[in-house]
Amino acid sequence: MTPVGEEMHALVERLYPLCRSITGDGVRATLDIVGEYLPLQVHEVPTGTPVLDWTVPQEWNIRDAYIADSTGRRVVDFAASSLHVLGYSVPVSATMPLSELREHLHTLPDQPSWVPYRTSYYKPEWGFCLAQDTLDAMPDGDYEVRIDSTLADGHLTYAEHVVPGQVADEVIVSCHTCHPALANDNMAGVAVATYLARELAQRTPYYTYRFIFAPGTIGAITWLARNAERVERVKHGLVLACAGDRGRLTYKQSRRGDAEIDRVLRHVLTASERPHQVNEFTPYGYDERQYCSPGFNLGVGSLTRTPYAGYPEYHTSADNPDFVSPEALADTLAVCREAFAVLDRNRRYLNLSPYGEPQLGRRGLYDALGGRSDTKQAQMAMLWVLNLSDGDHDLLDVAERSGLPFDTVADAAGALHEAGLIKT
Amino acid sequence: MTPVGEEMHALVERLYPLCRSITGDGVRATLDIVGEYLPLQVHEVPTGTPVLDWTVPQEWNIRDAYIADSTGRRVVDFAASSLHVLGYSVPVSATMPLSELREHLHTLPDQPSWVPYRTSYYKPEWGFCLAQDTLDAMPDGDYEVRIDSTLADGHLTYAEHVVPGQVADEVIVSCHTCHPALANDNMAGVAVATYLARELAQRTPYYTYRFIFAPGTIGAITWLARNAERVERVKHGLVLACAGDRGRLTYKQSRRGDAEIDRVLRHVLTASERPHQVNEFTPYGYDERQYCSPGFNLGVGSLTRTPYAGYPEYHTSADNPDFVSPEALADTLAVCREAFAVLDRNRRYLNLSPYGEPQLGRRGLYDALGGRSDTKQAQMAMLWVLNLSDGDHDLLDVAERSGLPFDTVADAAGALHEAGLIKT
Amino acid sequence: MTPVGEEMHALVERLYPLCRSITGDGVRATLDIVGEYLPLQVHEVPTGTPVLDWTVPQEWNIRDAYIADSTGRRVVDFAASSLHVLGYSVPVSATMPLSELREHLHTLPDQPSWVPYRTSYYKPEWGFCLAQDTLDAMPDGDYEVRIDSTLADGHLTYAEHVVPGQVADEVIVSCHTCHPALANDNMAGVAVATYLARELAQRTPYYTYRFIFAPGTIGAITWLARNAERVERVKHGLVLACAGDRGRLTYKQSRRGDAEIDRVLRHVLTASERPHQVNEFTPYGYDERQYCSPGFNLGVGSLTRTPYAGYPEYHTSADNPDFVSPEALADTLAVCREAFAVLDRNRRYLNLSPYGEPQLGRRGLYDALGGRSDTKQAQMAMLWVLNLSDGDHDLLDVAERSGLPFDTVADAAGALHEAGLIKT
Repeated sequence: MTPVGEEMHALVERLYPLCRSITGDGVRATLDIVGEYLPLQVHEVPTGTPVLDWTVPQEWNIRDAYIADSTGRRVVDFAASSLHVLGYSVPVSATMPLSELREHLHTLPDQPSWVPYRTSYYKPEWGFCLAQDTLDAMPDGDYEVRIDSTLADGHLTYAEHVVPGQVADEVIVSCHTCHPALANDNMAGVAVATYLARELAQRTPYYTYRFIFAPGTIGAITWLARNAERVERVKHGLVLACAGDRGRLTYKQSRRGDAEIDRVLRHVLTASERPHQVNEFTPYGYDERQYCSPGFNLGVGSLTRTPYAGYPEYHTSADNPDFVSPEALADTLAVCREAFAVLDRNRRYLNLSPYGEPQLGRRGLYDALGGRSDTKQAQMAMLWVLNLSDGDHDLLDVAERSGLPFDTVADAAGALHEAGLIKT
Repeated sequence: MTPVGEEMHALVERLYPLCRSITGDGVRATLDIVGEYLPLQVHEVPTGTPVLDWTVPQEWNIRDAYIADSTGRRVVDFAASSLHVLGYSVPVSATMPLSELREHLHTLPDQPSWVPYRTSYYKPEWGFCLAQDTLDAMPDGDYEVRIDSTLADGHLTYAEHVVPGQVADEVIVSCHTCHPALANDNMAGVAVATYLARELAQRTPYYTYRFIFAPGTIGAITWLARNAERVERVKHGLVLACAGDRGRLTYKQSRRGDAEIDRVLRHVLTASERPHQVNEFTPYGYDERQYCSPGFNLGVGSLTRTPYAGYPEYHTSADNPDFVSPEALADTLAVCREAFAVLDRNRRYLNLSPYGEPQLGRRGLYDALGGRSDTKQAQMAMLWVLNLSDGDHDLLDVAERSGLPFDTVADAAGALHEAGLIKT
Repeated sequence: MTPVGEEMHALVERLYPLCRSITGDGVRATLDIVGEYLPLQVHEVPTGTPVLDWTVPQEWNIRDAYIADSTGRRVVDFAASSLHVLGYSVPVSATMPLSELREHLHTLPDQPSWVPYRTSYYKPEWGFCLAQDTLDAMPDGDYEVRIDSTLADGHLTYAEHVVPGQVADEVIVSCHTCHPALANDNMAGVAVATYLARELAQRTPYYTYRFIFAPGTIGAITWLARNAERVERVKHGLVLACAGDRGRLTYKQSRRGDAEIDRVLRHVLTASERPHQVNEFTPYGYDERQYCSPGFNLGVGSLTRTPYAGYPEYHTSADNPDFVSPEALADTLAVCREAFAVLDRNRRYLNLSPYGEPQLGRRGLYDALGGRSDTKQAQMAMLWVLNLSDGDHDLLDVAERSGLPFDTVADAAGALHEAGLIKT
């Protein structure tokens, strides 16, 4: 039993059924719940606001939607699952034969019992998503179709939570909040981000950590458009998605490939001996697409378990809370915790006594009697830090080159810093 | 049956028997025949002309040559094969015992039925090349030896054919024309170059393509000496040799190793899944030696099938038209065609909307309804082009990084360019 | 039988028993013996002299030391081995029970018959090193302990030998002289350095070779402190240690990793097909620690056989002359000889005729008659040297790229240089 994993799973279960989209009350309800765990600053951006190359769209809200057969029985019902309606469907109220209705129906013939997730944000459409089995059981004839939705000027909603650090330089943790009744994608990411923020707030971290809960693509673009000057301060970042399935961890590197966040995640995943995979950047996936567009080119990677589109349940009704495990959520959280602990202590020092080794002994930093081994690793770490503190290497380099644990290296650097032998 | 392969093979057969050397009427006759297929600009450079570190030598012509036995029977006869005379032999007319003659005879003891190819361009010598079997059958005694050759002031002859392109920047395709009765080395290269030029002329390529038919070493040196200012415009090049044997394709990289022509050939050979080998540059081989000398250091690679000296028939009478296959000639031509198609479309673009992704949907470049896969690859290509169009990557980089076919990437770039999202 | 190996082994045997430390008469006696083989310039640096971050310590000398049992029998006796006293022990003269004595006794429980080597240079201590077997045989009761040592102002002693070269640029060969009765560590290094210096003096090498015989750490630091302006002239260097055990050769690269000395040693070890290992730099080991501290960052590697702490006999009485073999000493010397031969001939040339190949034939550098193979390798070497002499490559690069032996390449460069085709 992993208590924090269970807690995060419970949060996923609470958030799961809400009808989220890139705008609308479902997003607000989601942020309300997250706000019970974490104080959030919620932003409402009016329809029509220009954001980079885009424009904030009309707000979409939906109250009811169904397909009813000739007896009035609802064979497909939005009340049962918010997946049943094509996201951003325009309103419809009509009766039509199945033959005509078919072109508005989306199924997964290869997974006949699963309901797919489909949207049409930027092209006015209406439609229903349903199981192929359901469709196969629908006799020809007329059906009543009704989508009681509104597309109207309103707002795009996103939220931030900031954990203030010792420096103004920021780390962003971003997760998309636009997917309806899907658990792993991305209420799992939201849950891990929420608990990570709570943990970080228990101390004052080195960096300022900014958590961004925003709809995919348009949300990240809106955040970037409204934070042009803050982007300068974003030194590192992580997009969290698909954080709770039972697959191994996957880190997708930033576009730079050798950003500090990339080096940290590679180090932590390898050093912890977790099964994992590190992937090159691709311009497809989640909001790393925006943060890593060539104009921004931020050091933002993406941490998932099974990545984007890598599991059959992806973007279907089978991505439900059972697909997410408490242990996996807790493990993803643990990797974030370990990675940010390294990131927060990683520094580039300059050896102030670079000609020959400084005499550690008279500063109480060296085991005086040759041959004893108890403090050997700490002394090796000091020699490594001194030797590589030339302005070109940071402590993570030292850990990688020496094979010593990062914490041993960082402790050694702390002792040397205190002794006045190195400076940042 | 491969028609173009058969046509090229027929050309090889026509050219094969002529007595070529680095100068002389055999070269002119060769260029006359090529000229039937392709308009050529023929250059005659006078003996004594200084060309870089060299001087154009005297012109060599030969009318007859033989070794006759005591009965007057010609046991070795130039009329049977131009290989029988040491290239650039000075005239001789004498009778001498076999013991004395022997030091002027060249054979291949390990391949007793083959006649070797030997020359002595820059040291006055005379000699005969013959099969070891022939030599073994020659009884002791006196032989009449006669070489009716002329070494006199004249000219070095080479030819060019230019396919004008959209830009003045040039691609050179160079093949040596100095080898006598050898088929693969290099009438095969001449035939492939000839047909490649004809194909390129059917459209206006991006680059201007210059075909150079010149004797090895001294010919390339002469061309370079006489085109000092044009060399600035040569952006890429390929030396074609040994283009028709049945071995797998071999690409020898330019001295730079990462020149665009190197990247293109590696890409095309790999992407087409042809069996092939890519070799590092060495300063031995064909005229890439001159184009890649450190002062020029041009982006010129060399395409062969089995490379220089890599087959036993190399530089022997066994390199005859049977050693060359129509299919191999056609395959070499196809690789050139594919490579130059990539080279011609390869560009470095700059994303004009680099902050976040531009909204492709409102420009009609994006499949509006999430989930459909028919245009997925084209859309991925657009995202890749946008993401990597930062001034540091060309379309070939995009194809390599994305794993998408080059043409898909180039088509995507075309659509983005038309939409005003990228510029060269 | 390897005469020079036997000679070096005899030198190791002579030097072995002396009681060396970082200062004192044992060091002087050691240098006196080396001085019989090689003229040495001996330096005496007064106690208290500041050297970089350190200070030259007091001089330590010892006349006698023992532990005697109640019958007056010496159970541990400095006269039997200088290892028995903790290096730099302060004087003591007392009688005490074994229980109290124990905290001053050092043994190797895992190797009960071996005496360990221990020192306490910078913290005042006294102690004895002995076999665990000896300790186990000591009954409880009172023991007389006596260390007749002096710690007083005096000098630190080190020596240099210079082999003048054609240029003032220097190669340093450094070996530590501070270890008492240990053979491989480091009288073997001293012996190899001594014979290497004698060999180099038989000709005038290109570089000036400076041999440094100095105590570990403080000696190298003292040399560096007193030679601030000379350090500029040190282009390459080698620390010699553990040079005589029967293990395979190990080259530890300089901190730079691609210094010329690193490339030379890698090349020689590989080309000679000796079993060997090449290690990355670490800031632990011998005096490469000082030469490669980030402020100096010299191109100094370290050559050993089994490296630092890599054999159980390391720093114990089992590192005696039997542990060192004449063959291993001779082999280490041979590698040094081969490496410095390459280093001394390695140059970066500039092709003075870089446009096309120069005509080697008219300079008598080319086999005029195509096809003969006897001088082929020399000609290939010339083409390689010409092609890579662009200012970016040295002859070692040429040897590595071409696969030709370094000497063939250097000979080719010599011929080209004589012909005026290349210059340094």
